[in-house]
Amino acid sequence: MARSEGSICKLCLVCSVIANLFFGVNLYRGRRGLWGRNWSIDEVSIQGLSWSGRAAAEAESAAARECSGHGRAYLDGVVVDGRPACECNNCYGGPDCSLFLPSCFADADEGDPLFLEPFWKQHAESSAVMVAGWHRMSYSFSDQTTLSQELESLLRKLHSLVGNAITDGKYILFGAGSTQLLSAAVHALSPHNSSLPASVVASIPYYSLYREQTEFFNSADCSFQGDPARWKNTTNTTGDIIEFVTAPNNPNGQLNEAVLHGPNIKTIYDRAYYWPHFTGIPSPADEDLTIFTISKLTGHAGSRFGWAFIRNEEVYQRMNMYLELNTMGVSRDTQLRALKLLKVIIKDGGREIFEFGYKTMTKRWDRLRKTLSMSNRFSLQKVPPENCTYFQKVREPTPAYAWVKCEWEEDRNCIEILNAAKILGRGGSIFHDDDRYVRLSLIKSDDDFDVLISHLEGLVSGEDGAKIM
Amino acid sequence: MARSEGSICKLCLVCSVIANLFFGVNLYRGRRGLWGRNWSIDEVSIQGLSWSGRAAAEAESAAARECSGHGRAYLDGVVVDGRPACECNNCYGGPDCSLFLPSCFADADEGDPLFLEPFWKQHAESSAVMVAGWHRMSYSFSDQTTLSQELESLLRKLHSLVGNAITDGKYILFGAGSTQLLSAAVHALSPHNSSLPASVVASIPYYSLYREQTEFFNSADCSFQGDPARWKNTTNTTGDIIEFVTAPNNPNGQLNEAVLHGPNIKTIYDRAYYWPHFTGIPSPADEDLTIFTISKLTGHAGSRFGWAFIRNEEVYQRMNMYLELNTMGVSRDTQLRALKLLKVIIKDGGREIFEFGYKTMTKRWDRLRKTLSMSNRFSLQKVPPENCTYFQKVREPTPAYAWVKCEWEEDRNCIEILNAAKILGRGGSIFHDDDRYVRLSLIKSDDDFDVLISHLEGLVSGEDGAKIM
Repeated sequence: MARSEGSICKLCLVCSVIANLFFGVNLYRGRRGLWGRNWSIDEVSIQGLSWSGRAAAEAESAAARECSGHGRAYLDGVVVDGRPACECNNCYGGPDCSLFLPSCFADADEGDPLFLEPFWKQHAESSAVMVAGWHRMSYSFSDQTTLSQELESLLRKLHSLVGNAITDGKYILFGAGSTQLLSAAVHALSPHNSSLPASVVASIPYYSLYREQTEFFNSADCSFQGDPARWKNTTNTTGDIIEFVTAPNNPNGQLNEAVLHGPNIKTIYDRAYYWPHFTGIPSPADEDLTIFTISKLTGHAGSRFGWAFIRNEEVYQRMNMYLELNTMGVSRDTQLRALKLLKVIIKDGGREIFEFGYKTMTKRWDRLRKTLSMSNRFSLQKVPPENCTYFQKVREPTPAYAWVKCEWEEDRNCIEILNAAKILGRGGSIFHDDDRYVRLSLIKSDDDFDVLISHLEGLVSGEDGAKIM
Repeated sequence: MARSEGSICKLCLVCSVIANLFFGVNLYRGRRGLWGRNWSIDEVSIQGLSWSGRAAAEAESAAARECSGHGRAYLDGVVVDGRPACECNNCYGGPDCSLFLPSCFADADEGDPLFLEPFWKQHAESSAVMVAGWHRMSYSFSDQTTLSQELESLLRKLHSLVGNAITDGKYILFGAGSTQLLSAAVHALSPHNSSLPASVVASIPYYSLYREQTEFFNSADCSFQGDPARWKNTTNTTGDIIEFVTAPNNPNGQLNEAVLHGPNIKTIYDRAYYWPHFTGIPSPADEDLTIFTISKLTGHAGSRFGWAFIRNEEVYQRMNMYLELNTMGVSRDTQLRALKLLKVIIKDGGREIFEFGYKTMTKRWDRLRKTLSMSNRFSLQKVPPENCTYFQKVREPTPAYAWVKCEWEEDRNCIEILNAAKILGRGGSIFHDDDRYVRLSLIKSDDDFDVLISHLEGLVSGEDGAKIM
């Protein structure tokens, strides 16, 4: 090991490290006046940097590329001229992303939560994590599970601080995003080897993944059956029914509630968007099976990390078995990173990130409403105000997506109208709804949102019979 | 952002950084004499450390715990007295792992590849990776896929250097370990909505996951049917058959070949152990569907990273769809780390890691053979020598597992005999074979292996009628 390479080297190191930590760390960060460390200063100062210096310098070198404020260079980006190339936001190009591409499409399709990227750049120091080459090589943690205990307790603490879920008396499981947990939950709630497979249902409009997973994986134990409405007034259903309840709903932001109730009804609550960025938090979720994801909490969609709270032990055991046989748990690298990110947001009870998220989303909704207020062609969904126990006020929801309706009789295919105006979104039929609707993502980067508004303005200003005339 | 906090601070930083990089980095590493960096020294020196210093210091503080050489402290370990606690190897305890627990079990159950941990500690500097808080938050890379291009090209280069797979003309996919890719492959090769589901088969003894996945996920499109022998001399099979070929085989290390051939036979080659640590590499694999994992290459089982090469486009598309609907690809954090690890091993064409692995495994096999040479009760599998194009010699294989047979008539349940001698392993029936066999893992930590040998010695020396008498 490098650590045993000799005391002369160590002496040199100590000299250097004292200088570095004093000038480089303390002074540099003095203006913010916050150390906010987890461990004592002595340990850090005395020890200094040996093996980690190069990796740190490499990361800073990549991050130092400004990319004109319209992109970023990543450590693992394609290397051009000896360093990672700038990866530009949509509608920007050139080696340093300074070139605006005026004829490009506004991309409001995917729910890529880049709106939180500036928050993490502002918290570069506290959110960085150094992974040693020998970090957690084993299949299991020291308690023989594939779940980090520290991460589990931080997640429980977070929900208690935010007040959006009661976690006492519930099992917890981690998944590769909520994506993996959704199918694990369907599997766990389906009967095993019954002649009557479970029916999986979700109220229209629904997130298309529920249907796609169930149909594609084609388990003999369940099948997708669309909207729960047809079972609503029937008491004599014979088989089990698994209802997805998405609250707030993707695509339309409504705080959905379960449609079906009864002894043979199992409910999976998808709470991906149940955070103060997007909605008031009227009360903590306290359900048999509730799924969250880091993607819509911190914005780290690429990390693929979600978690579920489960009341029933048997359901928990079956979901756990699914996750073990499917991927043997969630990458320990991802769990390490999630831990660091959650530590940052938990430090002030989530105040800073939720205020950042709420403010950003409010500004975007204000601009969107203003833009479409000139239109009689396009309307937005109405989501009722909610009491927010977190912000301690009644507030207008600021959903992650606009659910736009084309109001003109002839605009039966709304996404075609938007595409013609160079706007990408998701047509209503993807959510099993009318194609008069389109989902527009409002949670992407500032650049994406600016281009979206600009193209919407162009579309609205060109309306025949627009209100402004 | 921290970067704009003023020029006085930056000046201080530059002074400190010059000192740090000169003394701390160059001198400290001078003895190894290798920089082996990816980027130019100027960039690194001039830039210095700002936001990454604290994370680096935290990681070094955790790593600095020696844990008496019988454990390690991780950055995300349970915090005791303000710092992550030592996590001790099996049979060691106490706050610093200095306490040997003489009555403990030798654990040779799981295939936890900790035998490579010392290699990574020796390469602490080149294998460390710093993850910025805003690293790859998006669902997709800039080419709109969920796969890192840089990682893909490094993997192809690695196989070309090692000579264990031909990757030209093949698609590549990433999975959360080979685990996820195995079930994705079965799904992709099964007929869709046919009245005749595919039969999944594997030669006994086989890795139990093949059966467990197929049975637990219970797809309507396939079912597990055990050993392929019953179809061997039958030409008129009606349905599709998917054969798993594990080469080298888990548990017994044999370089298996496909048993079945024909138009309705699809073969999945599980090449997890096809690396020079474990076997000669007679020729590069050139198959329709071949699966590898980082777990048995670098030892990073906890990272959950595997990859597959696929010749047929339709099969590739279906596997890709499975991976997207299942987890939306592999964690970008994991991909970043895999990239860094592969860069380390590829630098010298794999020479150092494969020599380390081969040497370690050879030493272990020598000790194991010597220990059991005194016994007439236990025998080891025989794996024929193989030509190794990588090491350019004919060599004895050094499989990851010992496949021990209990030779005495009365020892029908071999694992019971070993358990009574405080040795944990996997009984033959787990691999659908006779319980006269037990799989013992030889790839765990040095401590694990030492305790295993010690308990085996005790068992052998107590034999009635042992050869030594």
